[in-house]
Amino acid sequence: MLRVDLNADMGESFGAYRLGEDEELMRYVTSANIACGMHAGDPLVMARTVALAAKAGVAVGAHPGYPDLQGFGRRPLGMSPEEVEAFVMYQVGALWAFCRAAGVPLRHVKAHGALYNQAAHDPALADAIARAVARVDDSLVLVGLAGSELLRAGRRAGLRVASEVFADRGYNPDGSLVPRGRPGALIHDPDAVAARVLRMVREGRVTASDGSDLEVRADTVCFHGDTPGAAGLVRHVRDQLARAGVTVAPLSDWV
Amino acid sequence: MLRVDLNADMGESFGAYRLGEDEELMRYVTSANIACGMHAGDPLVMARTVALAAKAGVAVGAHPGYPDLQGFGRRPLGMSPEEVEAFVMYQVGALWAFCRAAGVPLRHVKAHGALYNQAAHDPALADAIARAVARVDDSLVLVGLAGSELLRAGRRAGLRVASEVFADRGYNPDGSLVPRGRPGALIHDPDAVAARVLRMVREGRVTASDGSDLEVRADTVCFHGDTPGAAGLVRHVRDQLARAGVTVAPLSDWV
Amino acid sequence: MLRVDLNADMGESFGAYRLGEDEELMRYVTSANIACGMHAGDPLVMARTVALAAKAGVAVGAHPGYPDLQGFGRRPLGMSPEEVEAFVMYQVGALWAFCRAAGVPLRHVKAHGALYNQAAHDPALADAIARAVARVDDSLVLVGLAGSELLRAGRRAGLRVASEVFADRGYNPDGSLVPRGRPGALIHDPDAVAARVLRMVREGRVTASDGSDLEVRADTVCFHGDTPGAAGLVRHVRDQLARAGVTVAPLSDWV
Amino acid sequence: MLRVDLNADMGESFGAYRLGEDEELMRYVTSANIACGMHAGDPLVMARTVALAAKAGVAVGAHPGYPDLQGFGRRPLGMSPEEVEAFVMYQVGALWAFCRAAGVPLRHVKAHGALYNQAAHDPALADAIARAVARVDDSLVLVGLAGSELLRAGRRAGLRVASEVFADRGYNPDGSLVPRGRPGALIHDPDAVAARVLRMVREGRVTASDGSDLEVRADTVCFHGDTPGAAGLVRHVRDQLARAGVTVAPLSDWV
Repeated sequence: MLRVDLNADMGESFGAYRLGEDEELMRYVTSANIACGMHAGDPLVMARTVALAAKAGVAVGAHPGYPDLQGFGRRPLGMSPEEVEAFVMYQVGALWAFCRAAGVPLRHVKAHGALYNQAAHDPALADAIARAVARVDDSLVLVGLAGSELLRAGRRAGLRVASEVFADRGYNPDGSLVPRGRPGALIHDPDAVAARVLRMVREGRVTASDGSDLEVRADTVCFHGDTPGAAGLVRHVRDQLARAGVTVAPLSDWV
Repeated sequence: MLRVDLNADMGESFGAYRLGEDEELMRYVTSANIACGMHAGDPLVMARTVALAAKAGVAVGAHPGYPDLQGFGRRPLGMSPEEVEAFVMYQVGALWAFCRAAGVPLRHVKAHGALYNQAAHDPALADAIARAVARVDDSLVLVGLAGSELLRAGRRAGLRVASEVFADRGYNPDGSLVPRGRPGALIHDPDAVAARVLRMVREGRVTASDGSDLEVRADTVCFHGDTPGAAGLVRHVRDQLARAGVTVAPLSDWV
Repeated sequence: MLRVDLNADMGESFGAYRLGEDEELMRYVTSANIACGMHAGDPLVMARTVALAAKAGVAVGAHPGYPDLQGFGRRPLGMSPEEVEAFVMYQVGALWAFCRAAGVPLRHVKAHGALYNQAAHDPALADAIARAVARVDDSLVLVGLAGSELLRAGRRAGLRVASEVFADRGYNPDGSLVPRGRPGALIHDPDAVAARVLRMVREGRVTASDGSDLEVRADTVCFHGDTPGAAGLVRHVRDQLARAGVTVAPLSDWV
Repeated sequence: MLRVDLNADMGESFGAYRLGEDEELMRYVTSANIACGMHAGDPLVMARTVALAAKAGVAVGAHPGYPDLQGFGRRPLGMSPEEVEAFVMYQVGALWAFCRAAGVPLRHVKAHGALYNQAAHDPALADAIARAVARVDDSLVLVGLAGSELLRAGRRAGLRVASEVFADRGYNPDGSLVPRGRPGALIHDPDAVAARVLRMVREGRVTASDGSDLEVRADTVCFHGDTPGAAGLVRHVRDQLARAGVTVAPLSDWV
């Protein structure tokens, strides 16, 4: 049976500041990565977003990032692995509390922004994240970029891991994403996005920016909630997956 | 059997800033209230302080406060009960993660500073704190000022509660503390402190500032780690309690 | 000659978070109160907002608030007058730097949110704000609620002061604003808003919520940038003022 | 006439957290680099430290750093040059306000920690800092590591610059400092420190870690306030400089 998870980052509002269209997205994704108050989100936003996910039956994951609200966690910060480990544990625990209060399990952890990107290449950072997750709850699924150091670190730590792909982003031949702003960075046509996702799920392949085929494992597909029309895109992909006989389901049920 | 818990606030360092003498205090208290990163503490400090408590066999509690590091959580902040509930849940969860990692249970929750003081009198704030604790883990003991609204709120929420007294502080006849800076606010003589604690534990009474007797229940006695010589004071009180046949033990074992 | 200033709070975005429609509003107001990074705004937003004001020929003022980004400066915070004084000086100085860089003068200071509201009634807080402004630059105009303690404090500190009214808010008979959420709190009809402003400027009177006439001095009229359609409303009021022969001009030119 | 400035970082306390021995140091240095609230310091600490410097007749400079209180500004943060420029302007302006209030001029700017270190090598960051300073006040002296990109950037921006050396740190043959923790990183003997300073001032040379001679210009000598006994060391160096006929004086008087 072919299965895949559809995820989106959520709960990125902060105080009076609104970001994303979480309510719409909750209708179509199977997993929500919820910001934990360091790069985005605050306790009230977390409580509301977990409640929203619980109501929608969407699996809740923690989305820890660097403590850099002003930079939205997108700027590398020179933290030691020991610091990263402690900061990830802190954020996972904070989100866990809201899950307990809402009566839903915490299912997965996916790092955010610069932390995610650095952990894809830096084994020490990757180990720090994996260790943090394993020490808090070794039944959690660790999500990382397909082919990344983070997935290897997760396996080393004894965690179940999930390989993430991006629905609407172009890939370089080496598996990295085409940087935003470059030609081919974003794929706008919903049918093209759905076709790429389907091929990644069925064949484990995607066409890279140079036309070559790239092997890529797709356990979970990321959608960006801050893209206008994101909810519609997720629905379209989900419909096409259903039509092709692919089951969409939260990671912790099957990875 | 007469029993009492001896507690101190710990883990109040932050980044490069050192505060308190946690290592010394850990040798004599039975419970540590560990700051959760909002009024003091940071994830690294939390990890280290929980490890210290685990090693010393001291019971770990969460010490949530207002998100006001610059004011050390001592300034009232006009948060709604809904906000307070979410902020307490967040902090309790964050500390819980470090307990999991260290393999020790989280045992109690004690609010800090202005939040503690306001919750002693404000039933809505008190209910918000109690609800936060109960929703995250209803086996946690909620610590509050002896005779306060917070204890009533804890009982309403179905929690075990512990009545806190202060070892080295003077009491007004109404049960409130003599404000710092006023005559009689602080009791400096270790023997006098020990005698007061012993009487509170054995008779449920303490001499108030006007010489009258005040009824006060003492489940746990607070010591201030930022007082120079705090560790010596705790040891002295603990010795005197032992000599008088009073058992010192963490709250969750017996309240 | 009848004169009035039209002001709006601006520069309230933060990092990735966007708030307000500053570019539109800059076309119609005469003064911009720019957030200083404590309740909203960040250095990059401040630089851009000052540049926007400079280009539009709008007078720049500092808009200091409590250090409470998550609460957007709307929650009272128990700061001492000494603390308030230092925090206002800090924020005024920070904005001054961007004015220097943009080659425009800093003209006025208007406190934000809870700080503004508390300083309307609390003489010690009001004096702290006024003293902070006077000590940094005694040529700055201090803006405060019409009839408030803050204006009295400004005069005591030797500052020029400006009495602020609200264009689209209902007034209680005592001069306070009808709280949001109550009937009559907001006036939605642009013609009614313009008529009220005109009467405040010409007669120094406004109709209160009970139908009585309230004396109110209107040096500057506040518009809320987060109201949808705010720019259109300011333009309409400005047109009506022009038609009635009232000059709109920044405060420091004439108060 | 031989002249040199003696500087120390100050005002690094924050809220309830105390750091450094500013009062002692103020007696012996000629320049104080005062933290501006982002990596350390807060408005109250800034006000008090500027007042202390004013009373002691010590020249006041701004000491801007990365917005990373928990990391004390010592961790690299991936800010763009545009962001660095705005953050430096912000901090310089904030400190300027306290100088105005205290009736003393702001004299120089010295970046802190990771920002200082990165700007020594990265021309784009160095230009951002220099541009920030020049745009706020082009009469300020920009302090940078001897031989660094920051000094070149300062000259490009039309600023007076000052070349900084470290009194008690070992130098590599390339002019960089021997990293802390390595042999020879710290020089503990006060007489050796004084002799090194004197030679740097008189001959423009210092003995590097490999025994070779390194050319180094010493306009200002940095002392670390967090070193125990720092004040005594500064006094000793100052005495030895006086004995050798070297004048100690703030930078802006003579560079």
